Amino acid sequence: GGNAAVSDNAAVAGIHGTVADLIQVNEGFEIAMDVVLGSALQHIVIENEASARKAIEWLKSSSRGRATFLPLDLIEERGRGAAFAKNELDRFGAVPAVTVVQTDAHYSKVIGFLLGNTLVAPDLSQAVAVARNYHKSVRVVTMAGDLVNPGGSMTGGSRERRGAGLIERKKDLEDLRAKLASLEQEDRESETQLRQASSNRD
Amino acid sequence: GGNAAVSDNAAVAGIHGTVADLIQVNEGFEIAMDVVLGSALQHIVIENEASARKAIEWLKSSSRGRATFLPLDLIEERGRGAAFAKNELDRFGAVPAVTVVQTDAHYSKVIGFLLGNTLVAPDLSQAVAVARNYHKSVRVVTMAGDLVNPGGSMTGGSRERRGAGLIERKKDLEDLRAKLASLEQEDRESETQLRQASSNRD
Repeated sequence: GGNAAVSDNAAVAGIHGTVADLIQVNEGFEIAMDVVLGSALQHIVIENEASARKAIEWLKSSSRGRATFLPLDLIEERGRGAAFAKNELDRFGAVPAVTVVQTDAHYSKVIGFLLGNTLVAPDLSQAVAVARNYHKSVRVVTMAGDLVNPGGSMTGGSRERRGAGLIERKKDLEDLRAKLASLEQEDRESETQLRQASSNRD
Repeated sequence: GGNAAVSDNAAVAGIHGTVADLIQVNEGFEIAMDVVLGSALQHIVIENEASARKAIEWLKSSSRGRATFLPLDLIEERGRGAAFAKNELDRFGAVPAVTVVQTDAHYSKVIGFLLGNTLVAPDLSQAVAVARNYHKSVRVVTMAGDLVNPGGSMTGGSRERRGAGLIERKKDLEDLRAKLASLEQEDRESETQLRQASSNRD
């Protein structure tokens, strides 16, 4: 898509990578973050607004599709970040989304921009309740991936049809890599044992 | 998708229709509104929050995918709607998006929720300028379909690959209908002339 075209193009200076490249999600919050970040996982972090305009012009002139850019000199943290009152959130079992995602200090602004306004709640009833508590100025995602958006629209349903999200797939891949590493280790151990057994027999 | 499943289901009470069903876009603003509304064109306007929760539970329990609901008792107008200072907007050649979309009075809240925070600007430079003027609290879309989002991310590029958006296609269909009607009218006129010529000859 457009993203790959931009990321691969050396002529577009100042590209830092996609959001998915730059963040790590805490274990257990993969579904919530897949839902709440959605297509933003493929947004491109870029040095400044002038580079973003150049990149957009280039995409346009070469008919290479569309992309969203997060210029580090233009984006701003939104909402309260981690500065929600904890005792208020505790009543709803909610946590600020910025506390369940990790990134380099250099990109903390990206997290604040994407998630500073977002809370994670245990279920949809609690999500609606905490959204009302903050006068619907916040976005609330549930652990199951349902959403109450700022202003009060609600998104939800079953996720089976769409397949796993990018973070879930990234985690699957990591799990697979770990599994593979442990199998290779077992192989090496078996081989060593076999060799020892075989040399003992000689 | 999930929307069709919900819209067709008589068991889910209080459904008014999709956003695309309920709005009309002024001529010339089709691309801008396609871009800025995007998937929100398929959001489902629903009577209240309890119905939305029921609908989400039903989608989930029957594995019918996901949908976004706009509960009329929960959503709120956002931003300033049409109440931006005109002389301020004029400096950038911008207009409030709510002024280029029509709907029944009953659904004006839906427009305010979706577009109250959005401006339309002539090009990307003006869009960035007007976004900065409002401290990046607004969303600005250009006539060509580029975007400056609240908080400062920028979206743009070529639209050729993705095919026309829903509003453009709706307009194409209307144009096609009008063309068809005028061709049928011409046909009828030719037929009448032919019949008259033929009866004159008899």
